[in-house]
Amino acid sequence: MGVTIAIDCMGGDHGPAVTVPAALSFLRSHADANVILVGREEAIQPLLGTAQSEFGARLKLRPASEVVTMDDPPAIAMRTKKDSSMRVVMDLVKAGEANAAVSAGNTGALMAISRFVLKTLPGVDRPAIATVLPSMRGHTYVLDLGANVDCSAEHLLQFGVMGSSLVAAIEHKERPSVGLLNIGEEAIKGNDVVKEAADLLRASGLNFYGNVEGDDIYEGTVDVVVCDGFVGNVALKTSEGLAQMLGAMLKEEFSRSLLTKLMAAVALPVLKRFKQRVDHRLYNGAPLLGLRGVVLKSHGSADVLAFSTALARAAEAASNRLIERISERMASMNEVKA
Amino acid sequence: MGVTIAIDCMGGDHGPAVTVPAALSFLRSHADANVILVGREEAIQPLLGTAQSEFGARLKLRPASEVVTMDDPPAIAMRTKKDSSMRVVMDLVKAGEANAAVSAGNTGALMAISRFVLKTLPGVDRPAIATVLPSMRGHTYVLDLGANVDCSAEHLLQFGVMGSSLVAAIEHKERPSVGLLNIGEEAIKGNDVVKEAADLLRASGLNFYGNVEGDDIYEGTVDVVVCDGFVGNVALKTSEGLAQMLGAMLKEEFSRSLLTKLMAAVALPVLKRFKQRVDHRLYNGAPLLGLRGVVLKSHGSADVLAFSTALARAAEAASNRLIERISERMASMNEVKA
Repeated sequence: MGVTIAIDCMGGDHGPAVTVPAALSFLRSHADANVILVGREEAIQPLLGTAQSEFGARLKLRPASEVVTMDDPPAIAMRTKKDSSMRVVMDLVKAGEANAAVSAGNTGALMAISRFVLKTLPGVDRPAIATVLPSMRGHTYVLDLGANVDCSAEHLLQFGVMGSSLVAAIEHKERPSVGLLNIGEEAIKGNDVVKEAADLLRASGLNFYGNVEGDDIYEGTVDVVVCDGFVGNVALKTSEGLAQMLGAMLKEEFSRSLLTKLMAAVALPVLKRFKQRVDHRLYNGAPLLGLRGVVLKSHGSADVLAFSTALARAAEAASNRLIERISERMASMNEVKA
Repeated sequence: MGVTIAIDCMGGDHGPAVTVPAALSFLRSHADANVILVGREEAIQPLLGTAQSEFGARLKLRPASEVVTMDDPPAIAMRTKKDSSMRVVMDLVKAGEANAAVSAGNTGALMAISRFVLKTLPGVDRPAIATVLPSMRGHTYVLDLGANVDCSAEHLLQFGVMGSSLVAAIEHKERPSVGLLNIGEEAIKGNDVVKEAADLLRASGLNFYGNVEGDDIYEGTVDVVVCDGFVGNVALKTSEGLAQMLGAMLKEEFSRSLLTKLMAAVALPVLKRFKQRVDHRLYNGAPLLGLRGVVLKSHGSADVLAFSTALARAAEAASNRLIERISERMASMNEVKA
């Protein structure tokens, strides 16, 4: 029997209108996987159509009466909304009824609830959020993306361990290379925390490449890029902004006149292929790492394709023993230290 | 009489082969400007051709026997190479013989030498490096880009003042909007330094917009984005990497087959226009702000077009009273505090 994914159907900008069709598409493409749809029955049921007879026991619906909104402070969401869809998916993972939880809801609340319900793995101080980005040579995994704003060198080391385990599980690379994000100005290479983190990573037994710079993310210099959550979040958002601007400008240039529109029509197949290659929807689903369970955060604005990508990635992580890999590495590192 | 730019002809990956032709091109396009070419006479002279008779007194050559290399530690470059081209351009600005200095050399050394020779303006703790990036609505100025790795809230405030003065001088906007780079995660909005800096900026009398995120740089949400040098450097390098990757992928898709090559040929005029619009060479020339003189750092790999852009920007900054604007604002802010 394959993995079971618990889906917070109420999260994200579009709620069940996106999460339910994405769940059905995931079931179709993953013949041995199961899903538990969690949320308000009256919102989910009408979107199921004939799915229940089509998928039988592979599709379950678990009602949850409350919804965590984007404005809910994490502490409030965690303490007062005990029957929220976000809370129930986590309870299902905790109880072993599901192998992974996926939500497009409020990131802060998701982090707080998952940490409260699942707890962190031994040796992990703080869970991190990782993402995967396209690179010239394949993919680059980057963490942390905003969960941890002020990081110690020890935290950065833990991110290295977790990121390395993630790539081992998902990309089937046994010794992924790990780079530490730094700046290359001649005089002033990095701050003290980064310098200390480099020493720890060098001694960690990980496949540590050394310092990398921002452009190495897209060069594909290493498999995993480690940084604190402030820097990672800025790098990601800046990339999103630049990609959007370039896309909009390209479109503008091609719609300038009838002639350029004709040129666009001719070039369309190539432009489409290009767009597909860098389609951010194919990179959706950021794992929360360091917890005693697989949890993935989908982008809030995810559409059906993007959300089903996150589901597929959750299935991949769960079936490739992500949690076990992280805790094994953590344990072996702590042995070395002791 | 127009402004005079002192040019470090020996700096950068290509040295005089780029800096000298760029200087001549600058003289041609700026009929009332003057240049002083600084460096090894035997390397510069052969590249001048008939320029000396063409430009007469507008073109001067000032020999300097030493060269700061990319590997020179800043302190060594500053203390031991007293006749370097980088040092001499700064001496010329200090002596009032030139209105601005431009170099494509070692950033750390340039910062150290300019700080040592020119000194900082009253109220400025540390000079910062600023750059301008294209945005959906025009340009966005970002600082700091790597000169200051660990910044206090007070430093970020000073960057806001300097960035605002820069935009006032170069873009002729009297009250440029200033944003503070932060992250938008619900739970965890920024670190303590950034929170404190927001309070200082709000009380500063600047046109403070509030927090912005990475994507706002390319949205063009504000005229000036303020951040510490580590974050700014990562944002810039990440952008460079992404732009390069997207360019390479677009090229790859268009060269896949004879058919796609034909499509590329058809679309060429549009692709060229697009490329021109985001050509990084048109954004070359990062001012070092907070000094008692105009200093611009060119990208080390700048070509003739890029380096002459930096020269034009230096002329613009010098003739629009950049230094006076910064010191006036600093003074009026310190009055308020006192």
